[in-house]
Amino acid sequence: MASRDQHDRMANAIRFLSMDAIEKANSGHPGLPMGCADIATVLFTRYLKFDPKAPNWPDRDRFVLSAGHGSMLLYSCLYLTGYEDMTIGEIERFRQLGSKTAGHPEYGFAGGIETTTGPLGQGIANAVGMALAERVMNAQFGDDLVDHHTYVIAGDGCLMEGISQEAIALAGHLKLNKLIVFWDDNNISIDGPVSLSDSTDQVARVKASGWNAFHIDGHDPEAIAAAIETAQKSDKPTLIAAKTTIGFGAPTKAGTKAAHGSPLGKDEIAATRKALNWDAPPFVVPDDILSAWREAGARGAAPRGDWDKRVAASGDRRPEFERRASGKLHDGFDAAIAAYKQKLAADKPKVATRKSSEMALEVINGALAETIGGSADLTPSNNTKTSQTKELSAGNYGNRYVHYGIREHAMAAAINGIALHGGLIPYGGTFFCFTDYARPALRLASLMGIRSLFVMTHDSIGLGEDGPTHQPVEHLAAMRAIPNHLVFRPADAMETAECWQAALHSTKAPSTLVLTRQDLRAVRTDYVAENLSAKGAYELAAAEGGDAKVTIFASGSEVEIALDARDLLQKDGTPTRVVSVPCFELFEEQDAAYREAVLGTAPVRIAVEAALRFGWDRFVGSDGAFVGMTGFGASAPAKDLYRYFGITAEAVATIAAERVKNGVPKGEAARAIPASEPARPHP
Amino acid sequence: MASRDQHDRMANAIRFLSMDAIEKANSGHPGLPMGCADIATVLFTRYLKFDPKAPNWPDRDRFVLSAGHGSMLLYSCLYLTGYEDMTIGEIERFRQLGSKTAGHPEYGFAGGIETTTGPLGQGIANAVGMALAERVMNAQFGDDLVDHHTYVIAGDGCLMEGISQEAIALAGHLKLNKLIVFWDDNNISIDGPVSLSDSTDQVARVKASGWNAFHIDGHDPEAIAAAIETAQKSDKPTLIAAKTTIGFGAPTKAGTKAAHGSPLGKDEIAATRKALNWDAPPFVVPDDILSAWREAGARGAAPRGDWDKRVAASGDRRPEFERRASGKLHDGFDAAIAAYKQKLAADKPKVATRKSSEMALEVINGALAETIGGSADLTPSNNTKTSQTKELSAGNYGNRYVHYGIREHAMAAAINGIALHGGLIPYGGTFFCFTDYARPALRLASLMGIRSLFVMTHDSIGLGEDGPTHQPVEHLAAMRAIPNHLVFRPADAMETAECWQAALHSTKAPSTLVLTRQDLRAVRTDYVAENLSAKGAYELAAAEGGDAKVTIFASGSEVEIALDARDLLQKDGTPTRVVSVPCFELFEEQDAAYREAVLGTAPVRIAVEAALRFGWDRFVGSDGAFVGMTGFGASAPAKDLYRYFGITAEAVATIAAERVKNGVPKGEAARAIPASEPARPHP
Repeated sequence: MASRDQHDRMANAIRFLSMDAIEKANSGHPGLPMGCADIATVLFTRYLKFDPKAPNWPDRDRFVLSAGHGSMLLYSCLYLTGYEDMTIGEIERFRQLGSKTAGHPEYGFAGGIETTTGPLGQGIANAVGMALAERVMNAQFGDDLVDHHTYVIAGDGCLMEGISQEAIALAGHLKLNKLIVFWDDNNISIDGPVSLSDSTDQVARVKASGWNAFHIDGHDPEAIAAAIETAQKSDKPTLIAAKTTIGFGAPTKAGTKAAHGSPLGKDEIAATRKALNWDAPPFVVPDDILSAWREAGARGAAPRGDWDKRVAASGDRRPEFERRASGKLHDGFDAAIAAYKQKLAADKPKVATRKSSEMALEVINGALAETIGGSADLTPSNNTKTSQTKELSAGNYGNRYVHYGIREHAMAAAINGIALHGGLIPYGGTFFCFTDYARPALRLASLMGIRSLFVMTHDSIGLGEDGPTHQPVEHLAAMRAIPNHLVFRPADAMETAECWQAALHSTKAPSTLVLTRQDLRAVRTDYVAENLSAKGAYELAAAEGGDAKVTIFASGSEVEIALDARDLLQKDGTPTRVVSVPCFELFEEQDAAYREAVLGTAPVRIAVEAALRFGWDRFVGSDGAFVGMTGFGASAPAKDLYRYFGITAEAVATIAAERVKNGVPKGEAARAIPASEPARPHP
Repeated sequence: MASRDQHDRMANAIRFLSMDAIEKANSGHPGLPMGCADIATVLFTRYLKFDPKAPNWPDRDRFVLSAGHGSMLLYSCLYLTGYEDMTIGEIERFRQLGSKTAGHPEYGFAGGIETTTGPLGQGIANAVGMALAERVMNAQFGDDLVDHHTYVIAGDGCLMEGISQEAIALAGHLKLNKLIVFWDDNNISIDGPVSLSDSTDQVARVKASGWNAFHIDGHDPEAIAAAIETAQKSDKPTLIAAKTTIGFGAPTKAGTKAAHGSPLGKDEIAATRKALNWDAPPFVVPDDILSAWREAGARGAAPRGDWDKRVAASGDRRPEFERRASGKLHDGFDAAIAAYKQKLAADKPKVATRKSSEMALEVINGALAETIGGSADLTPSNNTKTSQTKELSAGNYGNRYVHYGIREHAMAAAINGIALHGGLIPYGGTFFCFTDYARPALRLASLMGIRSLFVMTHDSIGLGEDGPTHQPVEHLAAMRAIPNHLVFRPADAMETAECWQAALHSTKAPSTLVLTRQDLRAVRTDYVAENLSAKGAYELAAAEGGDAKVTIFASGSEVEIALDARDLLQKDGTPTRVVSVPCFELFEEQDAAYREAVLGTAPVRIAVEAALRFGWDRFVGSDGAFVGMTGFGASAPAKDLYRYFGITAEAVATIAAERVKNGVPKGEAARAIPASEPARPHP
């Protein structure tokens, strides 16, 4: 244990690295690193289990800086403990183009950055996923291979965000006792004192959800140590409410909002050096202090070596543990999908794609023991549970199905945490409309480039009577707009199987499967070994009787409408092809020749999707036709809605035939064709 | 007071109307209406202040069914108490096309539907806004004109959703003691017992946020009445945890998830008739019971008459109260904006649009006493506070600035509640990236068509060092995709004033103002009386020296880049025009001739926006050029980012010149031009 003086100097190393880096960048948040330096010093030097030489050691403790704006705290700790890629040069290049030291911590930029944080509340919910993953892997592989803690530093903002309540309630319910959260209780937010906007007793609040919680002095190293030890012994998750002074050490700005989000300025920094008795120039840590930190960083080598030995001695468990830790799918997986596709070609089931998703999951969950499913309380609607996935609960962590509760946002963020933890492939469901509730977490999955899987059912007006509050119309556009996110909308059971296969193989981008409530007939009735859906778009039906005059593009439930429209047009002697478009993003990844071939040369292009046109110009051109929605839906039986809004084979065929006959109008005239739908009924 | 037998029969009227309507529709949620029938009967017949003959009486109590899937509870009460537009015919047409009885309650469909609910947790947060609006209007106009309660029925789902924590904490902090929430504590969610996913002590939880809370038997009318009276006397908001049986009365399904979301079925309904001793056929309420209900509905006429008299006697306050209740802007408003625009034409300020928004708000808040501002703890960044808007707090409800805390979602939903309440025009700010946190509420504002105003700053990579977690790239597309939502992205102070003016005049669609962190030069330097921004897009700079060969479209911070590119092209002898596009949605509302004229006939079209291309094909065509982002941003100074991602006047001019020279490539070749930006740096 370091002497108090030694501790203070070690903590001050974090403070000065942080304030100097922020000053140099002329941008950043010194308040948290200075306020939480004592907590981080005790945690990183005495308790956190990690090895800077092996940042990806599967059994390391996870540390999540949920208050990501305090990124310099994390970067300082990584540099001081000796992570090789976190050099002093990176610290000096804080917030500069191409540095590892981005404004907010970014997963993948350097070892020890366990998740991307900044959007408040995400980190604590990621940590719930990590802590859950630890318990699941522990139950599945044993204490000798998996036994670690998840630590979090969260700020007032994290706890005010609604997602924190979802995460806290879930963690309390599941008794994730290896989750230990420090609340940086500094009484300050951007607008001023927290008392401007909040009066919540946070300790009482988390206790109400089954947590252990208590207050400490966040600047007393022994109190911090005692708190961690108490928390480690708890049978519940723990919130340590650590009273701190934001910007600790800054003579005039400490304890004020001025310390939160701006460089302190030269004078204040000079005064802080004096006040904390720190002589070293910027970016220099006195040798004895750096040595003490590096020594602490080296603590992890021995336990890591012991763990390596335990893995080596783990016998039968070893290959499966190592495969799962690597993220590689089981060799038999693709073969299982191929066999399933052959069965589908024979059976030609007419089922909702939410049902065909369940059927695919039955195959997947059988082939891959690492999947862990769940739903935000819509299990019977999302069809996310299969025969292999029993209910996971506080006493049964080895099971594979999580009842996330009515908590879409925390579910998505926990799924990110599970994916980040490794060893498991998480998926979870809700209604597609409620991707809106989870959107900040969906975006971070994309930014991080991780294999989070989302199962979104009830994907259009096809859900019927629940009405416009539950009917997505803009959600396909809004999801397709997120970079690095695969949005799949399969047309039948065959495409659903292919989309699931593509999603599971996508290790650098998350996927969302968009699925119907209503039955769809099989449109892919022959077995093709290749995963056609993984090409994003492909010709499903060729033109007959000459060069195509019309190409109809469609996705999901509208593919059968496109095929019916093609029948009508062919009957009238108009050669027409149909292109199924299960995934915009994967289509963009194909080469130009393939894309050109799929788009084709038919003079008339028309798209049909029970959603807004937004994004479809890419396929049909700005003068192309579109049959779909132009606004919100309505409450009525699905068949009535398709008819009312004019999303029918007849409408598609009529518009296409008219354009074949009279040519494609140009410019605004192209937009003046009779709207494919009326405004929604408003009594 | 009704006898217990009378009460039971009145409550059973709700139960049978609900179960019969749901049975006929073969769709809906009988569990809540049957479980909460006792609560609703006591509330509607004895306490709720309303007059079915004057559904919009400004001083009525508000009733919000946050658990909107129980819509038949509300429709039943409206029919039974005598709202004229809620006929038995409408009840019979539950969930049918064009009926007033949509699957979930829809604002505007019938009197007494105070807000659209269904997406869980929204209603309780709307109610916080309504209860806040009541206190504000009370403080501004006095007890004689404004003095009413806001009642809510919320389910387990509402309380599990994170937004509820934000709303509860805000209401507790502001001591909104006229807010009374019934929690339908029925232990059942869709997946099964609530214990599958939650262990929260909800009473303890809300007490931690400063609420009054206690348990009652939700089927005991006198306990319900006593609870309401206790709540009415509280100096805090109250949660009444009412233990109920879901599907109360159904012999085999009550108390199970089978009662939640599906018709009970003929046999169960017949058995329920027997169990509850109810002989009347479907859709028939025995005369004595209907009379008792109608009598209760008539209770409000007298207090409403008294209130009318008080308004008539309110002297000076009357015209302002009536104007504000009507939602009409003050006569002087447009003149104040005109004068301000003249000043801007003279001053030509170079400021960030977040700053020019503050300048506009200084004018607006001076001219319109009904505005009420706020921010989700980003006041100094969003520039949402002006000299007129002092801090609102529990003791100071007459003030006009709400520190919403780090609660974007509840802020947006509370803003909806304030707008729905009437008498006030609410606006609130956060970072544009965090529209994602508020999206479900933003969508409902659009679906309802109300004047909610959102101020979203830091709108692109132009925010710089905070990095991709805070840099919107897809958010313009995602917001533009929401139907009936005006998304404004002004280019300078003049456009900002015009966009604010248009937003305030938009009473049937909410608006989001998308604003920069960084300074922008004045691009509109002459005074024009007409609100050009309200046309959505307009020619800002004409081509010189011949017919335009190039049209450059841009919004916001990229308009000055477009103008600089035009200068480069004109210098090279290429006649080039620039179109500023502050609002896609308003452009679509113009006639085809105007749209055609603005789009123009220049062979080369190019758009520039520091965001994704998604949506811009509408202006430039699928073969048009686009300079912007193709993925996430990065952490670095803003100028470095614009350069790195190639969003510069030089890039725009180069691409345009190349196309003028060689023609516009067609098809996939058009997409093969050198990307306007590289992938984001990943160290």
